[in-house]
Amino acid sequence: MISAKIAITPQFYDIDPMQVVWHGNYARFFEIARCALLDRIGYGYEAMAASGYAWPIVDLRIRYARPVKLFQGLEVEANLVAYENYLRIAYRCRDAQSGETLTKGQTTQVAVSLQSGETCLESPEVFLEKVRRLL
Amino acid sequence: MISAKIAITPQFYDIDPMQVVWHGNYARFFEIARCALLDRIGYGYEAMAASGYAWPIVDLRIRYARPVKLFQGLEVEANLVAYENYLRIAYRCRDAQSGETLTKGQTTQVAVSLQSGETCLESPEVFLEKVRRLL
Amino acid sequence: MISAKIAITPQFYDIDPMQVVWHGNYARFFEIARCALLDRIGYGYEAMAASGYAWPIVDLRIRYARPVKLFQGLEVEANLVAYENYLRIAYRCRDAQSGETLTKGQTTQVAVSLQSGETCLESPEVFLEKVRRLL
Amino acid sequence: MISAKIAITPQFYDIDPMQVVWHGNYARFFEIARCALLDRIGYGYEAMAASGYAWPIVDLRIRYARPVKLFQGLEVEANLVAYENYLRIAYRCRDAQSGETLTKGQTTQVAVSLQSGETCLESPEVFLEKVRRLL
Repeated sequence: MISAKIAITPQFYDIDPMQVVWHGNYARFFEIARCALLDRIGYGYEAMAASGYAWPIVDLRIRYARPVKLFQGLEVEANLVAYENYLRIAYRCRDAQSGETLTKGQTTQVAVSLQSGETCLESPEVFLEKVRRLL
Repeated sequence: MISAKIAITPQFYDIDPMQVVWHGNYARFFEIARCALLDRIGYGYEAMAASGYAWPIVDLRIRYARPVKLFQGLEVEANLVAYENYLRIAYRCRDAQSGETLTKGQTTQVAVSLQSGETCLESPEVFLEKVRRLL
Repeated sequence: MISAKIAITPQFYDIDPMQVVWHGNYARFFEIARCALLDRIGYGYEAMAASGYAWPIVDLRIRYARPVKLFQGLEVEANLVAYENYLRIAYRCRDAQSGETLTKGQTTQVAVSLQSGETCLESPEVFLEKVRRLL
Repeated sequence: MISAKIAITPQFYDIDPMQVVWHGNYARFFEIARCALLDRIGYGYEAMAASGYAWPIVDLRIRYARPVKLFQGLEVEANLVAYENYLRIAYRCRDAQSGETLTKGQTTQVAVSLQSGETCLESPEVFLEKVRRLL
Protein backbone atom coordinates (compact mmCIF):
# COMPACT_ATOMS: atom_id res chain seq x y z
CA MET A 1 0.00 0.00 0.00
CA ILE A 2 1.43 3.36 -1.04
CA SER A 3 0.35 6.24 1.16
CA ALA A 4 1.19 9.78 2.26
CA LYS A 5 0.15 11.87 5.22
CA ILE A 6 -0.08 15.63 5.55
CA ALA A 7 -0.94 17.99 8.41
CA ILE A 8 -3.34 20.87 7.93
CA THR A 9 -5.00 23.41 10.19
CA PRO A 10 -8.26 24.96 8.96
CA GLN A 11 -8.06 28.73 8.80
CA PHE A 12 -10.66 31.48 9.27
CA TYR A 13 -11.35 31.50 5.52
CA ASP A 14 -12.23 27.77 5.64
CA ILE A 15 -15.02 28.23 8.18
CA ASP A 16 -18.66 28.70 7.25
CA PRO A 17 -21.45 30.57 9.07
CA MET A 18 -22.18 27.43 11.12
CA GLN A 19 -18.66 27.75 12.61
CA VAL A 20 -17.34 24.59 10.94
CA VAL A 21 -15.22 23.90 7.86
CA TRP A 22 -17.39 24.43 4.77
CA HIS A 23 -18.01 21.01 3.18
CA GLY A 24 -16.52 21.98 -0.20
CA ASN A 25 -13.14 22.87 1.31
CA TYR A 26 -12.23 19.24 1.92
CA ALA A 27 -11.55 18.98 -1.82
CA ARG A 28 -8.58 21.29 -1.13
CA PHE A 29 -7.40 19.26 1.86
CA PHE A 30 -7.60 16.05 -0.17
CA GLU A 31 -5.70 17.69 -3.03
CA ILE A 32 -2.75 18.50 -0.78
CA ALA A 33 -2.66 14.87 0.40
CA ARG A 34 -3.08 13.57 -3.15
CA CYS A 35 -0.14 15.68 -4.38
CA ALA A 36 2.00 14.35 -1.53
CA LEU A 37 1.08 10.79 -2.52
CA LEU A 38 1.76 11.39 -6.22
CA ASP A 39 5.09 13.02 -5.33
CA ARG A 40 6.04 9.88 -3.45
CA ILE A 41 5.25 7.87 -6.59
CA GLY A 42 7.32 10.34 -8.62
CA TYR A 43 4.28 11.22 -10.70
CA GLY A 44 3.26 14.72 -9.68
CA TYR A 45 1.65 17.37 -11.89
CA GLU A 46 4.80 18.09 -13.90
CA ALA A 47 5.75 14.45 -14.36
CA MET A 48 2.21 13.73 -15.55
CA ALA A 49 2.41 16.46 -18.16
CA ALA A 50 5.90 15.34 -19.22
CA SER A 51 4.60 11.79 -19.66
CA GLY A 52 1.98 13.01 -22.15
CA TYR A 53 -1.09 12.48 -19.99
CA ALA A 54 -3.52 14.56 -17.99
CA TRP A 55 -5.33 12.80 -15.14
CA PRO A 56 -8.63 14.60 -14.59
CA ILE A 57 -10.73 13.64 -11.59
CA VAL A 58 -13.85 11.84 -12.82
CA ASP A 59 -15.37 10.98 -9.46
CA LEU A 60 -15.26 12.50 -5.97
CA ARG A 61 -16.92 11.16 -2.83
CA ILE A 62 -16.78 12.59 0.65
CA ARG A 63 -18.39 11.32 3.85
CA TYR A 64 -18.48 13.81 6.70
CA ALA A 65 -18.62 11.95 10.02
CA ARG A 66 -17.84 14.88 12.33
CA PRO A 67 -17.60 18.64 11.82
CA VAL A 68 -14.19 20.34 12.00
CA LYS A 69 -13.64 23.57 13.91
CA LEU A 70 -11.40 26.60 13.34
CA PHE A 71 -7.71 25.81 14.01
CA GLN A 72 -8.48 22.14 14.79
CA GLY A 73 -5.28 20.28 13.89
CA LEU A 74 -5.90 17.65 11.20
CA GLU A 75 -3.99 14.82 9.65
CA VAL A 76 -5.04 13.77 6.17
CA GLU A 77 -3.89 10.41 4.84
CA ALA A 78 -4.08 9.44 1.17
CA ASN A 79 -3.85 5.78 0.12
CA LEU A 80 -3.54 4.45 -3.40
CA VAL A 81 -6.31 1.84 -3.66
CA ALA A 82 -6.41 1.16 -7.43
CA TYR A 83 -4.08 1.97 -10.29
CA GLU A 84 -4.33 -0.54 -13.14
CA ASN A 85 -7.20 0.97 -15.10
CA TYR A 86 -7.63 4.23 -13.21
CA LEU A 87 -6.03 6.01 -10.31
CA ARG A 88 -8.14 5.73 -7.19
CA ILE A 89 -7.10 7.31 -3.91
CA ALA A 90 -8.87 6.94 -0.57
CA TYR A 91 -8.58 9.71 2.03
CA ARG A 92 -9.02 9.72 5.77
CA CYS A 93 -9.03 12.94 7.75
CA ARG A 94 -8.32 12.54 11.46
CA ASP A 95 -8.10 14.81 14.46
CA ALA A 96 -4.34 15.22 14.95
CA GLN A 97 -4.58 14.88 18.73
CA SER A 98 -7.19 12.18 19.32
CA GLY A 99 -6.73 10.29 16.05
CA GLU A 100 -10.51 10.17 15.65
CA THR A 101 -11.67 9.84 12.03
CA LEU A 102 -13.63 12.95 11.01
CA THR A 103 -14.00 12.66 7.25
CA LYS A 104 -13.42 10.00 4.59
CA GLY A 105 -13.27 10.39 0.86
CA GLN A 106 -12.21 9.00 -2.46
CA THR A 107 -11.16 10.37 -5.84
CA THR A 108 -10.91 8.57 -9.16
CA GLN A 109 -8.74 9.86 -11.99
CA VAL A 110 -8.32 8.52 -15.51
CA ALA A 111 -5.47 9.09 -17.92
CA VAL A 112 -6.25 11.25 -20.94
CA SER A 113 -3.72 11.47 -23.75
CA LEU A 114 -2.63 15.07 -24.19
CA GLN A 115 -2.00 14.40 -27.86
CA SER A 116 -5.21 12.68 -28.93
CA GLY A 117 -7.48 13.89 -26.13
CA GLU A 118 -8.67 10.31 -25.71
CA THR A 119 -9.34 8.66 -22.37
CA CYS A 120 -7.18 5.59 -21.72
CA LEU A 121 -9.01 2.40 -20.73
CA GLU A 122 -5.87 1.19 -18.96
CA SER A 123 -3.34 3.21 -17.01
CA PRO A 124 -0.33 4.04 -19.18
CA GLU A 125 2.85 2.02 -18.68
CA VAL A 126 4.85 5.07 -17.49
CA PHE A 127 2.60 5.29 -14.44
CA LEU A 128 2.33 1.54 -13.81
CA GLU A 129 6.11 1.23 -13.71
CA LYS A 130 6.41 3.95 -11.10
CA VAL A 131 3.80 2.27 -8.93
CA ARG A 132 5.32 -1.21 -9.27
CA ARG A 133 8.71 0.13 -8.23
CA LEU A 134 7.22 1.08 -4.85
CA LEU A 135 5.14 -2.05 -4.22
CA MET B 1 -40.69 15.87 -7.84
CA ILE B 2 -39.56 19.21 -6.45
CA SER B 3 -36.77 20.84 -8.41
CA ALA B 4 -35.00 24.12 -9.15
CA LYS B 5 -32.75 25.26 -11.94
CA ILE B 6 -30.07 27.95 -11.90
CA ALA B 7 -27.77 29.39 -14.57
CA ILE B 8 -24.08 29.89 -13.91
CA THR B 9 -21.08 30.91 -15.98
CA PRO B 10 -17.65 29.79 -14.73
CA GLN B 11 -15.31 32.71 -14.22
CA PHE B 12 -11.54 33.07 -14.53
CA TYR B 13 -11.14 32.28 -10.80
CA ASP B 14 -12.95 28.94 -11.31
CA ILE B 15 -10.46 27.67 -13.89
CA ASP B 16 -7.45 25.53 -13.05
CA PRO B 17 -4.06 25.25 -14.79
CA MET B 18 -5.51 22.60 -17.16
CA GLN B 19 -7.90 25.32 -18.48
CA VAL B 20 -11.04 23.67 -17.07
CA VAL B 21 -13.18 24.29 -13.98
CA TRP B 22 -11.33 22.97 -10.94
CA HIS B 23 -13.19 19.87 -9.70
CA GLY B 24 -13.78 21.25 -6.19
CA ASN B 25 -15.66 24.30 -7.49
CA TYR B 26 -18.73 22.25 -8.41
CA ALA B 27 -19.54 22.16 -4.69
CA ARG B 28 -20.21 25.90 -5.04
CA PHE B 29 -22.32 25.45 -8.17
CA PHE B 30 -24.38 22.74 -6.47
CA GLU B 31 -24.81 24.96 -3.39
CA ILE B 32 -26.41 27.72 -5.45
CA ALA B 33 -28.83 25.19 -6.97
CA ARG B 34 -29.52 23.62 -3.57
CA CYS B 35 -30.34 27.02 -2.04
CA ALA B 36 -32.74 27.72 -4.93
CA LEU B 37 -34.44 24.36 -4.30
CA LEU B 38 -34.68 24.92 -0.54
CA ASP B 39 -36.05 28.41 -1.14
CA ARG B 40 -38.79 26.88 -3.27
CA ILE B 41 -39.63 24.57 -0.36
CA GLY B 42 -39.61 27.58 1.96
CA TYR B 43 -36.84 26.03 3.99
CA GLY B 44 -33.71 28.06 3.26
CA TYR B 45 -30.84 28.76 5.65
CA GLU B 46 -32.77 31.19 7.83
CA ALA B 47 -35.93 29.07 7.97
CA MET B 48 -33.79 26.08 8.98
CA ALA B 49 -32.22 28.01 11.84
CA ALA B 50 -35.62 29.39 12.88
CA SER B 51 -37.02 25.84 12.96
CA GLY B 52 -34.34 24.79 15.45
CA TYR B 53 -32.31 22.56 13.16
CA ALA B 54 -29.04 22.68 11.28
CA TRP B 55 -28.75 20.44 8.21
CA PRO B 56 -25.07 19.65 7.71
CA ILE B 57 -24.02 17.83 4.58
CA VAL B 58 -22.93 14.31 5.52
CA ASP B 59 -22.24 12.98 2.04
CA LEU B 60 -21.19 14.50 -1.28
CA ARG B 61 -20.73 12.70 -4.60
CA ILE B 62 -19.76 14.18 -7.93
CA ARG B 63 -19.28 12.47 -11.28
CA TYR B 64 -17.45 14.51 -13.89
CA ALA B 65 -18.48 13.35 -17.37
CA ARG B 66 -17.05 16.26 -19.37
CA PRO B 67 -14.75 19.17 -18.50
CA VAL B 68 -16.16 22.70 -18.39
CA LYS B 69 -14.37 25.66 -19.97
CA LEU B 70 -14.07 29.33 -19.05
CA PHE B 71 -17.32 31.25 -19.65
CA GLN B 72 -19.15 28.07 -20.80
CA GLY B 73 -22.81 28.73 -19.97
CA LEU B 74 -24.17 26.12 -17.56
CA GLU B 75 -27.53 25.14 -16.21
CA VAL B 76 -27.58 23.34 -12.88
CA GLU B 77 -30.71 21.47 -11.84
CA ALA B 78 -31.35 20.28 -8.29
CA ASN B 79 -33.96 17.62 -7.57
CA LEU B 80 -35.20 16.51 -4.18
CA VAL B 81 -34.86 12.72 -4.26
CA ALA B 82 -35.39 11.78 -0.58
CA TYR B 83 -36.68 13.66 2.43
CA GLU B 84 -38.26 11.35 5.01
CA ASN B 85 -35.17 10.41 7.01
CA TYR B 86 -32.65 12.71 5.43
CA LEU B 87 -32.54 15.39 2.75
CA ARG B 88 -31.05 14.07 -0.45
CA ILE B 89 -30.66 16.25 -3.53
CA ALA B 90 -29.46 15.11 -6.95
CA TYR B 91 -27.75 17.59 -9.28
CA ARG B 92 -27.28 17.65 -13.01
CA CYS B 93 -25.08 20.23 -14.68
CA ARG B 94 -25.75 20.75 -18.38
CA ASP B 95 -24.29 22.86 -21.13
CA ALA B 96 -26.83 25.68 -21.47
CA GLN B 97 -26.74 25.63 -25.26
CA SER B 98 -26.57 21.94 -26.20
CA GLY B 99 -28.26 20.55 -23.10
CA GLU B 100 -25.53 17.93 -22.84
CA THR B 101 -25.01 16.57 -19.31
CA LEU B 102 -21.53 17.50 -18.08
CA THR B 103 -21.56 16.67 -14.38
CA LYS B 104 -23.84 14.84 -11.97
CA GLY B 105 -23.83 14.89 -8.21
CA GLN B 106 -25.67 14.26 -4.99
CA THR B 107 -25.65 15.65 -1.46
CA THR B 108 -27.18 14.16 1.67
CA GLN B 109 -28.03 16.29 4.70
CA VAL B 110 -29.35 15.23 8.08
CA ALA B 111 -31.20 17.33 10.62
CA VAL B 112 -29.29 18.14 13.81
CA SER B 113 -31.15 19.72 16.71
CA LEU B 114 -29.59 23.08 17.51
CA GLN B 115 -30.64 22.66 21.15
CA SER B 116 -29.42 19.16 21.94
CA GLY B 117 -26.82 18.81 19.18
CA GLU B 118 -28.28 15.40 18.40
CA THR B 119 -28.74 14.03 14.90
CA CYS B 120 -32.37 13.24 14.03
CA LEU B 121 -33.08 9.74 12.69
CA GLU B 122 -36.16 11.09 10.93
CA SER B 123 -36.65 14.45 9.26
CA PRO B 124 -38.44 16.85 11.60
CA GLU B 125 -42.14 17.51 11.03
CA VAL B 126 -41.57 21.20 10.19
CA PHE B 127 -39.63 20.17 7.09
CA LEU B 128 -41.89 17.26 6.11
CA GLU B 129 -44.92 19.55 6.11
CA LYS B 130 -43.26 22.01 3.79
CA VAL B 131 -42.32 19.23 1.36
CA ARG B 132 -45.79 17.62 1.45
CA ARG B 133 -47.43 20.94 0.67
CA LEU B 134 -45.56 20.99 -2.66
CA LEU B 135 -46.06 17.34 -3.64
CA MET C 1 -16.13 56.78 -19.25
CA ILE C 2 -16.44 53.07 -20.09
CA SER C 3 -18.22 51.04 -17.48
CA ALA C 4 -20.10 47.81 -16.81
CA LYS C 5 -22.42 46.69 -14.07
CA ILE C 6 -23.15 43.19 -12.80
CA ALA C 7 -25.52 41.79 -10.18
CA ILE C 8 -24.36 39.26 -7.63
CA THR C 9 -25.85 37.62 -4.57
CA PRO C 10 -23.41 36.32 -1.95
CA GLN C 11 -23.94 32.63 -1.24
CA PHE C 12 -23.46 30.52 1.88
CA TYR C 13 -19.90 29.66 0.77
CA ASP C 14 -19.02 33.40 0.66
CA ILE C 15 -19.89 33.99 4.32
CA ASP C 16 -17.36 33.84 7.14
CA PRO C 17 -17.83 32.91 10.81
CA MET C 18 -18.76 36.55 11.59
CA GLN C 19 -21.83 36.09 9.32
CA VAL C 20 -20.58 38.52 6.66
CA VAL C 21 -18.88 38.10 3.27
CA TRP C 22 -15.23 37.14 3.88
CA HIS C 23 -13.08 40.10 2.83
CA GLY C 24 -11.05 38.14 0.28
CA ASN C 25 -14.14 37.15 -1.72
CA TYR C 26 -14.58 40.64 -3.13
CA ALA C 27 -11.67 39.86 -5.46
CA ARG C 28 -14.06 37.39 -7.13
CA PHE C 29 -16.91 39.89 -7.28
CA PHE C 30 -14.60 42.50 -8.83
CA GLU C 31 -13.33 39.95 -11.33
CA ILE C 32 -16.84 39.27 -12.65
CA ALA C 33 -17.37 43.04 -13.10
CA ARG C 34 -13.92 43.46 -14.67
CA CYS C 35 -14.62 40.71 -17.21
CA ALA C 36 -17.94 42.37 -18.10
CA LEU C 37 -16.10 45.66 -18.63
CA LEU C 38 -13.36 44.07 -20.73
CA ASP C 39 -16.00 42.22 -22.78
CA ARG C 40 -17.60 45.56 -23.54
CA ILE C 41 -14.22 46.82 -24.76
CA GLY C 42 -13.86 43.65 -26.84
CA TYR C 43 -10.72 42.75 -24.95
CA GLY C 44 -11.61 39.81 -22.74
CA TYR C 45 -9.32 36.97 -21.70
CA GLU C 46 -9.25 35.29 -25.12
CA ALA C 47 -8.80 38.55 -27.05
CA MET C 48 -5.91 39.45 -24.74
CA ALA C 49 -4.17 36.15 -25.41
CA ALA C 50 -4.83 36.45 -29.17
CA SER C 51 -3.28 39.94 -29.12
CA GLY C 52 -0.04 38.53 -27.72
CA TYR C 53 -0.29 40.02 -24.24
CA ALA C 54 -1.11 38.90 -20.73
CA TRP C 55 -2.40 41.53 -18.34
CA PRO C 56 -1.52 40.45 -14.80
CA ILE C 57 -2.91 42.42 -11.89
CA VAL C 58 -0.05 44.28 -10.21
CA ASP C 59 -2.06 46.17 -7.61
CA LEU C 60 -5.33 45.57 -5.76
CA ARG C 61 -6.99 47.87 -3.25
CA ILE C 62 -10.27 47.34 -1.44
CA ARG C 63 -12.03 49.59 1.07
CA TYR C 64 -14.80 47.95 3.05
CA ALA C 65 -17.30 50.56 4.20
CA ARG C 66 -20.10 48.23 5.29
CA PRO C 67 -20.33 44.47 5.79
CA VAL C 68 -22.41 42.38 3.38
CA LYS C 69 -24.78 39.67 4.57
CA LEU C 70 -25.86 36.31 3.15
CA PHE C 71 -28.13 36.70 0.09
CA GLN C 72 -27.88 40.52 0.19
CA GLY C 73 -28.41 41.60 -3.41
CA LEU C 74 -25.42 43.52 -4.75
CA GLU C 75 -24.62 45.57 -7.80
CA VAL C 76 -20.96 45.88 -8.73
CA GLU C 77 -19.90 48.59 -11.14
CA ALA C 78 -16.53 48.65 -12.88
CA ASN C 79 -15.18 51.84 -14.45
CA LEU C 80 -12.14 52.19 -16.65
CA VAL C 81 -10.16 55.03 -15.03
CA ALA C 82 -6.79 54.77 -16.82
CA TYR C 83 -5.60 52.92 -19.90
CA GLU C 84 -2.66 54.68 -21.59
CA ASN C 85 0.20 53.15 -19.64
CA TYR C 86 -1.67 50.57 -17.62
CA LEU C 87 -5.22 49.33 -17.23
CA ARG C 88 -6.82 50.69 -14.09
CA ILE C 89 -10.37 49.84 -13.10
CA ALA C 90 -12.31 51.29 -10.19
CA TYR C 91 -15.08 49.26 -8.56
CA ARG C 92 -18.07 50.23 -6.50
CA CYS C 93 -20.25 47.64 -4.81
CA ARG C 94 -23.70 48.85 -3.83
CA ASP C 95 -26.72 47.38 -2.10
CA ALA C 96 -29.05 46.57 -5.00
CA GLN C 97 -32.12 47.86 -3.18
CA SER C 98 -30.93 50.99 -1.35
CA GLY C 99 -28.08 51.93 -3.68
CA GLU C 100 -25.86 52.46 -0.65
CA THR C 101 -22.14 52.06 -1.37
CA LEU C 102 -20.76 49.12 0.60
CA THR C 103 -17.31 48.52 -0.83
CA LYS C 104 -14.92 50.32 -3.17
CA GLY C 105 -11.86 49.01 -4.90
CA GLN C 106 -9.33 49.34 -7.66
CA THR C 107 -7.15 47.04 -9.74
CA THR C 108 -4.17 47.91 -11.90
CA GLN C 109 -2.99 45.64 -14.71
CA VAL C 110 0.01 45.98 -16.98
CA ALA C 111 0.59 44.43 -20.38
CA VAL C 112 3.25 41.72 -20.53
CA SER C 113 4.37 40.44 -23.92
CA LEU C 114 3.66 36.71 -24.15
CA GLN C 115 6.61 36.33 -26.51
CA SER C 116 9.37 38.20 -24.67
CA GLY C 117 7.92 38.08 -21.16
CA GLU C 118 8.67 41.79 -20.85
CA THR C 119 6.39 44.29 -19.18
CA CYS C 120 5.21 47.08 -21.49
CA LEU C 121 5.73 50.65 -20.28
CA GLU C 122 2.85 51.79 -22.45
CA SER C 123 -0.36 49.97 -23.25
CA PRO C 124 -0.11 48.19 -26.61
CA GLU C 125 -1.82 49.77 -29.62
CA VAL C 126 -4.27 46.87 -30.02
CA PHE C 127 -5.82 47.74 -26.67
CA LEU C 128 -5.67 51.53 -27.09
CA GLU C 129 -7.59 51.29 -30.37
CA LYS C 130 -10.37 49.30 -28.78
CA VAL C 131 -10.69 51.82 -25.97
CA ARG C 132 -10.64 54.84 -28.30
CA ARG C 133 -13.37 53.32 -30.40
CA LEU C 134 -15.69 53.48 -27.38
CA LEU C 135 -14.72 56.94 -26.08
CA MET D 1 8.34 45.62 16.05
CA ILE D 2 6.08 42.59 16.52
CA SER D 3 6.15 40.14 13.65
CA ALA D 4 5.44 36.57 12.63
CA LYS D 5 6.52 34.45 9.72
CA ILE D 6 4.79 31.48 8.09
CA ALA D 7 5.73 29.11 5.28
CA ILE D 8 3.29 28.24 2.55
CA THR D 9 3.42 26.30 -0.70
CA PRO D 10 0.82 27.20 -3.36
CA GLN D 11 -1.20 24.17 -4.42
CA PHE D 12 -2.85 23.20 -7.70
CA TYR D 13 -6.12 24.83 -6.57
CA ASP D 14 -4.31 28.16 -6.06
CA ILE D 15 -3.14 28.38 -9.67
CA ASP D 16 -5.03 30.19 -12.41
CA PRO D 17 -5.17 29.54 -16.16
CA MET D 18 -2.04 31.69 -16.64
CA GLN D 19 -0.12 29.12 -14.53
CA VAL D 20 0.46 31.49 -11.61
CA VAL D 21 -1.20 32.00 -8.23
CA TRP D 22 -4.55 33.76 -8.78
CA HIS D 23 -4.24 37.29 -7.39
CA GLY D 24 -7.15 36.93 -4.97
CA ASN D 25 -5.56 33.97 -3.18
CA TYR D 26 -2.97 36.15 -1.46
CA ALA D 27 -5.75 37.27 0.89
CA ARG D 28 -5.67 33.70 2.23
CA PHE D 29 -1.88 33.68 2.52
CA PHE D 30 -1.93 36.99 4.38
CA GLU D 31 -4.66 35.70 6.69
CA ILE D 32 -2.52 32.77 7.81
CA ALA D 33 0.35 35.18 8.58
CA ARG D 34 -2.00 37.62 10.31
CA CYS D 35 -3.39 34.88 12.55
CA ALA D 36 0.15 33.84 13.47
CA LEU D 37 0.95 37.46 14.38
CA LEU D 38 -2.23 37.89 16.42
CA ASP D 39 -1.55 34.59 18.18
CA ARG D 40 1.84 35.94 19.19
CA ILE D 41 0.11 39.00 20.64
CA GLY D 42 -2.33 36.69 22.44
CA TYR D 43 -5.22 38.27 20.58
CA GLY D 44 -6.42 35.69 18.08
CA TYR D 45 -9.99 35.19 16.86
CA GLU D 46 -11.27 33.68 20.12
CA ALA D 47 -9.51 36.22 22.36
CA MET D 48 -10.99 39.02 20.24
CA ALA D 49 -14.51 37.66 20.67
CA ALA D 50 -13.94 37.09 24.40
CA SER D 51 -12.78 40.72 24.73
CA GLY D 52 -16.11 41.94 23.31
CA TYR D 53 -14.81 43.20 19.98
CA ALA D 54 -14.83 42.15 16.37
CA TRP D 55 -12.01 43.48 14.17
CA PRO D 56 -13.27 43.58 10.60
CA ILE D 57 -10.84 44.38 7.84
CA VAL D 58 -11.67 47.82 6.44
CA ASP D 59 -8.83 48.13 3.95
CA LEU D 60 -6.72 45.69 1.94
CA ARG D 61 -3.84 46.52 -0.39
CA ILE D 62 -1.68 44.13 -2.37
CA ARG D 63 1.21 44.87 -4.71
CA TYR D 64 2.25 42.01 -6.94
CA ALA D 65 5.89 42.39 -7.94
CA ARG D 66 6.48 38.91 -9.34
CA PRO D 67 4.18 35.99 -10.19
CA VAL D 68 4.27 32.85 -8.05
CA LYS D 69 4.30 29.37 -9.56
CA LEU D 70 2.81 26.04 -8.50
CA PHE D 71 4.68 24.53 -5.51
CA GLN D 72 7.03 27.55 -5.24
CA GLY D 73 8.02 27.66 -1.57
CA LEU D 74 7.00 30.96 0.03
CA GLU D 75 7.67 32.73 3.29
CA VAL D 76 5.08 35.30 4.37
CA GLU D 77 6.00 37.79 7.06
CA ALA D 78 3.44 39.90 8.91
CA ASN D 79 4.52 43.03 10.82
CA LEU D 80 2.39 45.11 13.16
CA VAL D 81 2.85 48.67 11.88
CA ALA D 82 0.07 50.57 13.75
CA TYR D 83 -2.14 49.68 16.68
CA GLU D 84 -3.23 52.78 18.64
CA ASN D 85 -6.34 53.74 16.65
CA TYR D 86 -6.57 50.75 14.33
CA LEU D 87 -4.71 47.52 13.72
CA ARG D 88 -2.51 47.75 10.66
CA ILE D 89 -0.38 44.87 9.48
CA ALA D 90 2.14 44.93 6.62
CA TYR D 91 2.93 41.73 4.72
CA ARG D 92 5.88 40.66 2.66
CA CYS D 93 5.85 37.45 0.66
CA ARG D 94 9.28 36.14 -0.31
CA ASP D 95 10.61 33.22 -2.28
CA ALA D 96 11.72 30.80 0.44
CA GLN D 97 14.94 29.91 -1.35
CA SER D 98 16.20 33.17 -2.84
CA GLY D 99 14.62 35.54 -0.33
CA GLU D 100 13.41 37.71 -3.21
CA THR D 101 10.33 39.80 -2.40
CA LEU D 102 7.42 38.70 -4.60
CA THR D 103 4.38 40.42 -3.11
CA LYS D 104 3.71 43.11 -0.52
CA GLY D 105 0.48 44.01 1.17
CA GLN D 106 -1.29 45.68 4.03
CA THR D 107 -4.52 45.21 5.96
CA THR D 108 -6.26 47.64 8.32
CA GLN D 109 -8.73 46.48 10.93
CA VAL D 110 -10.82 48.51 13.34
CA ALA D 111 -12.41 47.43 16.59
CA VAL D 112 -16.19 47.15 16.58
CA SER D 113 -18.00 46.63 19.89
CA LEU D 114 -19.95 43.38 19.74
CA GLN D 115 -22.50 44.83 22.15
CA SER D 116 -23.25 48.22 20.59
CA GLY D 117 -22.13 47.48 17.05
CA GLU D 118 -20.22 50.75 17.09
CA THR D 119 -16.79 51.27 15.58
CA CYS D 120 -14.14 52.36 18.11
CA LEU D 121 -12.13 55.45 17.24
CA GLU D 122 -9.29 54.20 19.42
CA SER D 123 -8.12 50.64 19.92
CA PRO D 124 -9.60 49.17 23.11
CA GLU D 125 -7.39 48.95 26.18
CA VAL D 126 -7.50 45.14 26.26
CA PHE D 127 -5.64 45.07 22.92
CA LEU D 128 -3.26 47.95 23.71
CA GLU D 129 -2.10 46.19 26.88
CA LYS D 130 -1.28 43.02 25.01
CA VAL D 131 0.72 44.93 22.43
CA ARG D 132 2.61 47.01 25.04
CA ARG D 133 3.58 43.88 26.91
CA LEU D 134 5.51 42.73 23.82
CA LEU D 135 7.14 46.05 22.89
